[in-house]
Amino acid sequence: MKISVHAASIDIFTHALSNLSAILEKGLAHATARKFDPSVLVSARLAPDMFPLSRQVQIACDLAKNSAARLAGVEPPRFEDNEKTLEELRARIAKTIDYLRSLPAAAFEGCEERDIKVPAGERTLEFKGLSFLQRWALPNVFFHITTAYNILRHNGVEIGKRDYLGSL
Amino acid sequence: MKISVHAASIDIFTHALSNLSAILEKGLAHATARKFDPSVLVSARLAPDMFPLSRQVQIACDLAKNSAARLAGVEPPRFEDNEKTLEELRARIAKTIDYLRSLPAAAFEGCEERDIKVPAGERTLEFKGLSFLQRWALPNVFFHITTAYNILRHNGVEIGKRDYLGSL
Repeated sequence: MKISVHAASIDIFTHALSNLSAILEKGLAHATARKFDPSVLVSARLAPDMFPLSRQVQIACDLAKNSAARLAGVEPPRFEDNEKTLEELRARIAKTIDYLRSLPAAAFEGCEERDIKVPAGERTLEFKGLSFLQRWALPNVFFHITTAYNILRHNGVEIGKRDYLGSL
Repeated sequence: MKISVHAASIDIFTHALSNLSAILEKGLAHATARKFDPSVLVSARLAPDMFPLSRQVQIACDLAKNSAARLAGVEPPRFEDNEKTLEELRARIAKTIDYLRSLPAAAFEGCEERDIKVPAGERTLEFKGLSFLQRWALPNVFFHITTAYNILRHNGVEIGKRDYLGSL
């Protein structure tokens, strides 16, 4: 027995994004307790030329959504990037998780061999499904979720690895 | 056809750790060009109560090594945590990748159903192999690699997502 690509993508993304949503909730609670405007966290960055928290969350959602759709061989819906608050970012995550759960496991059958193209600026990256999962989808989704976590942690929000890992 | 746990762990870990090694090399080049002591980067943190770069790299290596060994059903070697320089951290990564590559793919057969126990402070976490991979091994390894990246990025090292993703 081996594992399905569905188990190695959808199950992982939905769990990790749920944890991210709980982490954003802790960010909101922290701002409320310290009586500062939570939008400070929404626009916080780790470096001047890195994306702020809002964009990290949007990209994490889009990478999960678009990667899952490509693996399932369907066209992903487009979500507007118009979130301005932590609550709106949590709603974006919830919408993304709903979409991920809507993809039938059967659509992922054989996708490890599927040709997948990803537009990346002037280049078009080409993968087989398996290497797309290994080299693009998983590393990218975890990158942006971890960076969102690190932005909040750097700004004093009381979160730990347990929040990132979620229920085990 | 489905994918093997070997493909969903060893292949991913070795690639991600190789990229981390190249990122550390850029950190060293940056410190050299700016004429500051590279050990400043080794002990840099994103928050006072977060681990510094050195520990992030050591933990990333150990999580990859120990997770792979648990999935393969063997006892992992113990590596001392005595690295003090970026070069030594890169050697730790190289040693870890050598170990990961030494595990025969056949040892991972059927491991998705294997019972895996992880000591975590006073608790012992219990997983089946598949959920261990989904909820522990992959999120944890990517967390520490991304955090190492973020520490360097936060400190002005000129790295980008391309360095993190490596060759595609």
